[in-house]
Amino acid sequence: MRAAVMRNHQLVVDDVPAPEPGPGQVLVKTLACGICGSDLHTLQHAEQLVEASRRTGGAYQWDVKRDVVMGHEFCAEVVDYGPHTQKALKPGTRVCSMPLVIRSDGVDTVGFSNDSPGGYGEYMRLSEALLLAVPNGLSSERAALVEPLAVGLHAVEKARLDKQDVPLVIGCGPVGLAVIAALRLKGIRPIVAAEFSPLRRELASRMGADVVVNPAEKSPYASWQQVAAYADPAQAPPLPPWVPGPSLRPAVVFECVGVPGVIDQIMTSAAPNARIVVVGVCMGKDTIEPMFGIGKELNIQFVLGYTPEEFGAMLHHVADGRIPTEPLITGKIGLNEVAQAFKDLATPEQHVKIIIEPWRS
Amino acid sequence: MRAAVMRNHQLVVDDVPAPEPGPGQVLVKTLACGICGSDLHTLQHAEQLVEASRRTGGAYQWDVKRDVVMGHEFCAEVVDYGPHTQKALKPGTRVCSMPLVIRSDGVDTVGFSNDSPGGYGEYMRLSEALLLAVPNGLSSERAALVEPLAVGLHAVEKARLDKQDVPLVIGCGPVGLAVIAALRLKGIRPIVAAEFSPLRRELASRMGADVVVNPAEKSPYASWQQVAAYADPAQAPPLPPWVPGPSLRPAVVFECVGVPGVIDQIMTSAAPNARIVVVGVCMGKDTIEPMFGIGKELNIQFVLGYTPEEFGAMLHHVADGRIPTEPLITGKIGLNEVAQAFKDLATPEQHVKIIIEPWRS
Repeated sequence: MRAAVMRNHQLVVDDVPAPEPGPGQVLVKTLACGICGSDLHTLQHAEQLVEASRRTGGAYQWDVKRDVVMGHEFCAEVVDYGPHTQKALKPGTRVCSMPLVIRSDGVDTVGFSNDSPGGYGEYMRLSEALLLAVPNGLSSERAALVEPLAVGLHAVEKARLDKQDVPLVIGCGPVGLAVIAALRLKGIRPIVAAEFSPLRRELASRMGADVVVNPAEKSPYASWQQVAAYADPAQAPPLPPWVPGPSLRPAVVFECVGVPGVIDQIMTSAAPNARIVVVGVCMGKDTIEPMFGIGKELNIQFVLGYTPEEFGAMLHHVADGRIPTEPLITGKIGLNEVAQAFKDLATPEQHVKIIIEPWRS
Repeated sequence: MRAAVMRNHQLVVDDVPAPEPGPGQVLVKTLACGICGSDLHTLQHAEQLVEASRRTGGAYQWDVKRDVVMGHEFCAEVVDYGPHTQKALKPGTRVCSMPLVIRSDGVDTVGFSNDSPGGYGEYMRLSEALLLAVPNGLSSERAALVEPLAVGLHAVEKARLDKQDVPLVIGCGPVGLAVIAALRLKGIRPIVAAEFSPLRRELASRMGADVVVNPAEKSPYASWQQVAAYADPAQAPPLPPWVPGPSLRPAVVFECVGVPGVIDQIMTSAAPNARIVVVGVCMGKDTIEPMFGIGKELNIQFVLGYTPEEFGAMLHHVADGRIPTEPLITGKIGLNEVAQAFKDLATPEQHVKIIIEPWRS
């Protein structure tokens, strides 16, 4: 099959063996696959990712000298079934799936593996048990957005928000926009968002942010403070006499940038008792000053992926039109354009989500 | 009055002006005052502490060029009252207090201030509103332990533990021992503790740790795993099919060391979904690898101090003999011996808590 292959930190279009479905597995044809920020990171930092995963028993362990076909945000079409399958979905049925393949010796992550090619190739093998049929009327390209949107939903679920919490989203790339969408879905408002790029600020508003700040012009934390007062001061918990008021609603800051220094910057600037949810993926070392965490009794929750329930719920939220997905797709390309798309995505002004359609090539 | 004064990163015994009680304040005579690890840190790193506090609007803002009389773990005796006081406690009454002085222009931290001398001096001024009478039968030196023990109780309260959680305490200095005492008080068991020093390992057992490990010989995380299985496997929450079992009880790791690198080490080694409570105070920068936090969805809760309720509760726990305080006090000294005590405390094998009795000198 044709695929855009990660090879020696480059993306090259080549013929590679099509996957064969094993027991409980399904062969599918890729209809649409999004390019994820972590694919961009991985192309540059595959060794660090694999090494970190090895040291902690994580899922991202492959041979960096061998080919990898990335792509874990996909919609596909059932082609054929392997042995020991139920065959409940007819060939031609469009499906989504968490990017995991269950094998007898463990689990493989689709798109981060030498053996389980992702949606940057014409075909994938998936686990039948994880397939979800795409509801009629939902386009394949929008179905491919379910995976990154589920990341936002999971981050918001892990934050255990209540109606008094006032969220601040730092960074409005695909991850930040997914968090904004999930916050809006859960009715947690006002939503404050910060982003340097004008295009992404506009998208943040369209996804549901109430206050969108350019950090070059105004402190996101000052903007947060302006909207974080209790509407009814009687609801504010009393402060000890030695804490200067006023009592503000609890701060929950979503780190959606994923480059070194951002966690420290948030720790320095966030309100006392803030909860910080780290959704951005910073590969490599980072520096913090624990004193800022201690002095303000901050909480940091790192999050990854989503649960099967969250993934399934997001498919229906998208299908039922509860998420404004239109603004997110800014390009559709064939395999030959993937390498250029990676370059284009490095500048935030052009794109949010580029969808690969491998069948075009 | 006589005091052991912090001056140019040295401790010198000198005569300094005795404090005068302002409105709502009380003059007290120091009976006993513990040396805290953060005093040791502050003597070396006062500039960083003050700078970090300035940048975040914290409480530790003083002029590092002027004298500071440290000491915030104290028991004292009421001597005289300032204006606008109720005078409910007779002169001679022994008292504890959170180390805060409420002033018309804000709050000062006793022992971390140019104007509010702490228990390394013969006299202090405290806020009448914060005084707690020491129950009869509780010695002054044990009453001085209430403050550091309250730190442990606060850390445990902030961890929001339930009976299934299995705690791992990294470092058994005064902070780690206080955490162990609080865990035992709350009935959270088994308690696993790790410490290089034989003396402190013995104390960890006496304070109530169930399993005490020398990290030079055995991984604390492996020891934790051995005791973290569910007694009744039916209570274990089901794992998704792709997560290798067995399902273990939730991990809560208390960082009680406070030197750079320990948070990263815990993040690398802790079980998936572990909650890390940072009680140790690391002044200065620290390096972490966010990928470890992300891959395991770790949570980090930084904590500081205690609430007035926790402080008051700990006074009664100590007075009622619910905490084994005997092992903790390993030395009692006068003001002339404070500088040497700071040197002695740098090696963990000699001491846990040294109590200063300024009236001796």
